[in-house]
Amino acid sequence: MSKRDLLALEDWPPEQIEALLQLTARIKRGEITGGLEKKVLALIFLTPSPSTRSSFQTAMFLHGGHTLVLERGQEGWTPETELGAVMDGEAGEHLIDAVRVLDRYADALGIRSGPPRTEWAAARQDAVMNYVAQQCEKPVINLESARRHPCQALADALTLQEKLGQVVGKRFVVTWAWHPRALPTAVPVSAALAAARLGMEIVIARPEGYELDPEDTALIRRTAQQAGGEFVHINDDPDDALVGADAVYVGSWGAVKLYGKPAEEAEVRAGLRDWKLTRSRLRSTRGGKGVVLHCLPVRRNVEIDDQVLDGPNSAVVDQAENRLHVQRAVLLELIGETRER
Amino acid sequence: MSKRDLLALEDWPPEQIEALLQLTARIKRGEITGGLEKKVLALIFLTPSPSTRSSFQTAMFLHGGHTLVLERGQEGWTPETELGAVMDGEAGEHLIDAVRVLDRYADALGIRSGPPRTEWAAARQDAVMNYVAQQCEKPVINLESARRHPCQALADALTLQEKLGQVVGKRFVVTWAWHPRALPTAVPVSAALAAARLGMEIVIARPEGYELDPEDTALIRRTAQQAGGEFVHINDDPDDALVGADAVYVGSWGAVKLYGKPAEEAEVRAGLRDWKLTRSRLRSTRGGKGVVLHCLPVRRNVEIDDQVLDGPNSAVVDQAENRLHVQRAVLLELIGETRER
Amino acid sequence: MSKRDLLALEDWPPEQIEALLQLTARIKRGEITGGLEKKVLALIFLTPSPSTRSSFQTAMFLHGGHTLVLERGQEGWTPETELGAVMDGEAGEHLIDAVRVLDRYADALGIRSGPPRTEWAAARQDAVMNYVAQQCEKPVINLESARRHPCQALADALTLQEKLGQVVGKRFVVTWAWHPRALPTAVPVSAALAAARLGMEIVIARPEGYELDPEDTALIRRTAQQAGGEFVHINDDPDDALVGADAVYVGSWGAVKLYGKPAEEAEVRAGLRDWKLTRSRLRSTRGGKGVVLHCLPVRRNVEIDDQVLDGPNSAVVDQAENRLHVQRAVLLELIGETRER
Repeated sequence: MSKRDLLALEDWPPEQIEALLQLTARIKRGEITGGLEKKVLALIFLTPSPSTRSSFQTAMFLHGGHTLVLERGQEGWTPETELGAVMDGEAGEHLIDAVRVLDRYADALGIRSGPPRTEWAAARQDAVMNYVAQQCEKPVINLESARRHPCQALADALTLQEKLGQVVGKRFVVTWAWHPRALPTAVPVSAALAAARLGMEIVIARPEGYELDPEDTALIRRTAQQAGGEFVHINDDPDDALVGADAVYVGSWGAVKLYGKPAEEAEVRAGLRDWKLTRSRLRSTRGGKGVVLHCLPVRRNVEIDDQVLDGPNSAVVDQAENRLHVQRAVLLELIGETRER
Repeated sequence: MSKRDLLALEDWPPEQIEALLQLTARIKRGEITGGLEKKVLALIFLTPSPSTRSSFQTAMFLHGGHTLVLERGQEGWTPETELGAVMDGEAGEHLIDAVRVLDRYADALGIRSGPPRTEWAAARQDAVMNYVAQQCEKPVINLESARRHPCQALADALTLQEKLGQVVGKRFVVTWAWHPRALPTAVPVSAALAAARLGMEIVIARPEGYELDPEDTALIRRTAQQAGGEFVHINDDPDDALVGADAVYVGSWGAVKLYGKPAEEAEVRAGLRDWKLTRSRLRSTRGGKGVVLHCLPVRRNVEIDDQVLDGPNSAVVDQAENRLHVQRAVLLELIGETRER
Repeated sequence: MSKRDLLALEDWPPEQIEALLQLTARIKRGEITGGLEKKVLALIFLTPSPSTRSSFQTAMFLHGGHTLVLERGQEGWTPETELGAVMDGEAGEHLIDAVRVLDRYADALGIRSGPPRTEWAAARQDAVMNYVAQQCEKPVINLESARRHPCQALADALTLQEKLGQVVGKRFVVTWAWHPRALPTAVPVSAALAAARLGMEIVIARPEGYELDPEDTALIRRTAQQAGGEFVHINDDPDDALVGADAVYVGSWGAVKLYGKPAEEAEVRAGLRDWKLTRSRLRSTRGGKGVVLHCLPVRRNVEIDDQVLDGPNSAVVDQAENRLHVQRAVLLELIGETRER
């Protein structure tokens, strides 16, 4: 089958990712125009994300295309997602039927499947994302599943390249932050995978109990090794972890072992509010110039202090802007007819 | 007045419907492009319908136009619909004012008026749909009223033609299905009218108490006779009704006599869960090959079993795709400047 | 800095406003086409306004551009607006971050900041509007703040010119109306400022206790004098106020002194339901032909009677249509490349 999906960065060969980032750079410089005329992208949000929606709508429009949006909880749409369900309850439509119809109207589909409220052993299967991709005849883009967020990872990679220039061997620290809610691990894992693939040294700093999924950690390690980088270490000290960092990626995620048990998880998390990126902590980055990254939205003065977000180290807005440009590249790559300007 | 509305298929002469279906076929083959540049369609949803919205948005976009959407319950919009009301309650705007303004911004208006919560004698007047059409200077398209759903009916007709080829004299069975809610009769009546106009034999199968509005039944009969078809019969046996069917249209609707009394209606409906399209029932269609139609969204394993929906008889996704194409034709016909490619 | 915002009409020199109205007239006659190709407008609604959204979407589309919409309460977006907040509560994103990101995706931003629930002394600062304008590198358009509504005022001015021809010296009456909710004063103040700038005589009719902000009243007076008009008087009699009116602008607003105290305000307002525009009151306008204006949405038979709204004096739909045309001019002026057709 000739269809290509973008479900996880690691599904694409490194040279395709590299080519995509180079295409993005050209798009951002204004060298590529059009290419999506009469093309329709359908976005399905099982969990909302206004910035994902906005950046894709802009991407499609700038190249001549259009975006359809379908969101759980809007327009009375509360789809059933379990295959085989007897639908005599609240759900008026099965996701699979909505997807099959949009597959006819659109040239590509994006879906944000969000984290299911089950145990991690089940959630990590990304079952919904996978059956959607399998059902569609058109390319499917993962807009964030329980496990992966490839569009964010591409924006992260581009931002690292832009801010650090030569990235190989530089130190990339993913550092956990306290957050009022237990979030999924898709963003930190995808970011670490992207940085690993760029050949960076990877540090993952998190409190005890907040280990990432062991298979994901192993994949990060393997990816770093293959790219010639080094998987430095796991660190449970929010101060020590930042020493010598070239880039600091602040993220928050819930304890994987307590996935789907929010009350218990919140109890464990309660004592960890000190995990926050402050101006004083930032001083221990390399020359005090560590680039600060975050996928946004960010809890100000909870995950990262105002002085950091509004200061010279912050690249979070550039990173968000890059979501737009990498997605333009992804769309042109998957369904576009690229033209030189 | 030169303005044309699409409120019900029977308002248009048969030859215009036939021409519209032929135009649709050409559009679907890619022979017609553009025609809606700088055109704006405004859609008003008093009851939501994501697929109606998506299909119209796609239709407008593919021909160069744009769609505005206004939905009850969104943006704090809970319009008054009663003419003459003293608006000192919750409703912040009268529908008539929203309509008059959109009539200025748009080139055509679609409205889904939905079923009012009154008795059927009142609901069947389609009062809101009618005053909207009367107020607008621009063409008005019925996106489903209490009584009619012409865009769905056009998609149904096209799908029948595509799947059955020569349709005259073939057997079209509308069969009732249990559903957790009491739905309006607009879809089954409109589908039966469309099939009748194509010259098909019509069977309506429903449990006792679920008779359609007598005037609608009479119109279906008259339409079938005029088109040279035959109004075979009404049937209250879900097995027997399917014998020899070339097409099976599964629909659900509330008891007309208990319209606006959901609690009483639910009691009557409670014992009717056996009305469901199963694989074994499908075997009694002509050669076991009866085409399965449904307007979607469908309650899986309640109205129709998974094996049927996912099996070779199902045309429900084609039918949904055809909504897009017939609506392209309707829009080009009402407000477009068609061009040969 | 070369960036221009539209936060209040009085920020722009009179000759620029005059030029904008002339541009609008040409746009409305169809003499200006395109100019917003590849341009993106981002609209942020902290309070909803479907007509603002629709008119801007149409404006952008008609000239080749696209509109992004972000609305409080949609997509789980309940932004923090207080600068410096420690975001450990419900708000998942700070407005400032949403704005900074949209500033990258869009070529201009519109924001409806709505009235904050504080005392008037604080609300009148329009703090949110001002920090948004200051943060953005792109032009910012005020879609209604606590104090001003410049796009509505431009539409008001155009409608007055269209309906009255030569407007200088003609009498413009803003008359208060009872409404079930306490609304902000942005619309009546902006309308009076616009009419004052056109050189009209201004009458403000309201019950005792419903005085506008004294600084705003002073600015209306000063604007009228500078334009050669006359600030006739404040009137507390809903009948007397209309005598000789060429235009009657019906508006409702809460008592400024009780701003942010809805319960107390409602008590004061309770006895004022007689403040309503009726057909008999309309007879006392000049020759009975006073033009009736309202920003919409209107509470029918509460603010204005049906016979007035549906009668020959009413210009409210023209006024709403003019929102579209003035906004086309504003957008072309701020971010467009205008071309003769």
